[in-house]
Amino acid sequence: MSYPEQFSGFQAPSAENWLDFKKGSWKPRPFGDYDVDIEIECCGVCASDKHTISGDWGDCPYPLAVGHEVVGKVLQVGPKVTLAKVGQRVGVGAQVYSCLECRLCKNDNETYCKHQIDAYGAPYLDTGYTTQGGYSSHTRIHEYWVYPIPEKLSSPNAAPMLCAGITVFSPLKRFGAGPGKKVGIVGVGGLGHYAVIFAKALGAETWAISRSRSKEADARKMGADGFIATQEEGWEKEHEHTFDLIVNTASSFDGFELGKYLSLLNVHGRWNSVGMPGEGITVHNQDFAGNGCFIGSTHLGSRKEMLEMLQLAADKGIESWVEEIPLSADGLRQAMDKLEKSSVRYRSCMVSYDKAFA
Amino acid sequence: MSYPEQFSGFQAPSAENWLDFKKGSWKPRPFGDYDVDIEIECCGVCASDKHTISGDWGDCPYPLAVGHEVVGKVLQVGPKVTLAKVGQRVGVGAQVYSCLECRLCKNDNETYCKHQIDAYGAPYLDTGYTTQGGYSSHTRIHEYWVYPIPEKLSSPNAAPMLCAGITVFSPLKRFGAGPGKKVGIVGVGGLGHYAVIFAKALGAETWAISRSRSKEADARKMGADGFIATQEEGWEKEHEHTFDLIVNTASSFDGFELGKYLSLLNVHGRWNSVGMPGEGITVHNQDFAGNGCFIGSTHLGSRKEMLEMLQLAADKGIESWVEEIPLSADGLRQAMDKLEKSSVRYRSCMVSYDKAFA
Repeated sequence: MSYPEQFSGFQAPSAENWLDFKKGSWKPRPFGDYDVDIEIECCGVCASDKHTISGDWGDCPYPLAVGHEVVGKVLQVGPKVTLAKVGQRVGVGAQVYSCLECRLCKNDNETYCKHQIDAYGAPYLDTGYTTQGGYSSHTRIHEYWVYPIPEKLSSPNAAPMLCAGITVFSPLKRFGAGPGKKVGIVGVGGLGHYAVIFAKALGAETWAISRSRSKEADARKMGADGFIATQEEGWEKEHEHTFDLIVNTASSFDGFELGKYLSLLNVHGRWNSVGMPGEGITVHNQDFAGNGCFIGSTHLGSRKEMLEMLQLAADKGIESWVEEIPLSADGLRQAMDKLEKSSVRYRSCMVSYDKAFA
Repeated sequence: MSYPEQFSGFQAPSAENWLDFKKGSWKPRPFGDYDVDIEIECCGVCASDKHTISGDWGDCPYPLAVGHEVVGKVLQVGPKVTLAKVGQRVGVGAQVYSCLECRLCKNDNETYCKHQIDAYGAPYLDTGYTTQGGYSSHTRIHEYWVYPIPEKLSSPNAAPMLCAGITVFSPLKRFGAGPGKKVGIVGVGGLGHYAVIFAKALGAETWAISRSRSKEADARKMGADGFIATQEEGWEKEHEHTFDLIVNTASSFDGFELGKYLSLLNVHGRWNSVGMPGEGITVHNQDFAGNGCFIGSTHLGSRKEMLEMLQLAADKGIESWVEEIPLSADGLRQAMDKLEKSSVRYRSCMVSYDKAFA
């Protein structure tokens, strides 16, 4: 494995022409004592990629390579690195830095650290460098955000777990999904499919909740014990006050009768949203008082949870539902189009990096 | 103590003339095996009383005596009663029945039972009787909702704890207020004053949060370790991510910047609202994601928590801040006026029942 002076990747040039991906190259930031250089093998496709480069979430620094579900091989490690080895297969997710010294970082809450840095489009400390994502040949990451991938997991199987997987695994784990608990997953998409898979893997009675029954067969194959279609009259009645936790992965509140969903929760049960609809939703204290329930959101998951999730996936032989797309400007456009149409079943992963960067 | 055939009380005659309290009388429902008859001595005044009889919360059955913070003496008990004794001083709160057989009831969540019955204005089972509240001479209550009052607590001191007190004590207790925890109380009114008192009594670092500093001196006397005035620029900055729990007792969302309040919470901290503003508030998933916080509401508290609260109050020598008002039609109008003007410091209690029903 040779080590390049410049990293290269497929970058969006501007908000106006965000689909006009161009292969560009850049000098990586200086190699630090705790840094790990990775030759990227594949990278999952997250809706955040599209929201970022299309300008949905405001301005971002162009040209920008996005992608934050990376798997690759370690090329070199800094002198103080103990968490990764040259030649090892590793993953990188949506966060690439936090201070590791504050109270939050010291309590496995590094994803809430005020000094967190995103995998792409973020100024990296005061170095003058902007983070570039995983539709790239290489990446340079602090060892703490580099995760060994268990041998049993193929790279395209593991990659989307690094953002979509951990985003749902963390709240499932933190809020008690397990034997004897009934867990609902709202939305069967990229996030939702992992939520069904991991809720089941953690031992919970797992119900998928979707508007229609079009994804019921898939959800049951993923491990759902039950399926609720909210287009059906009175869907909420028989489940009143029975769910211990609901993970909401829906990306829109359009037509959402939140009160009905909340009525599904057991006393003090949690409705945890991990999707990020742009619009808000109006709530009344009365929506909560019938069962003393709570709504909120979580953000990614800790390193500890990441390692636990990957090991659980390996131990249980979990297979992500992944559509592999060879990396190229055309391939990325195809992936973005699938996001736009919500047609992916259930996560795209860009592959064939060896050819893309031959 | 003589036992009357009829109970009497000060009733609101209609929504239009709700302040025109008239002394009326009614036949109590048949005396059951688990019933306890109580001669009322005093009754705290809750905003719910006003909301109910003024029609704020919709229709209610007139004529109606409200009041659900009752203390009195036991006159007679049913043959199967084991929880109360004739002659004993006892309290009754805002709930007077639940099934006691469902999963919720069996897990100290009887306030969320689907069969719960309110202390006033509610049809009592299928008996054709409507519950009448505590601005009355007597009341007949199932023993489970009758609480012995510790000797150390005076009756007007204990009465308002039975709704206002338990409403804040329950979430404080359930969500971990105690040594090493930092708890915020939004609003220093009837509920808020108990929240400050009990958070401190439970050992938490207790902060009162109010618009201005007008109640700071009072809050500190109640036990607040700190005080935040939200009219002051940048009030939220120094407390970011430090509160483990916030109990919101505000009765309005008017001018409420919820995002700033939520930024006070520690990771996965709870914002628990016990006030019931009629209007809703719009939330965005992004409001929660910075610290993974949750918002919700709780409803009253269990019998177990009620007994624990009363004992704690006795053990710690807790004094409610109570303004005593002799019971009469005029006295009730005065109490309702104080509610309207938010001028009570901090809870009214109707007293002198012996004269009112002489």
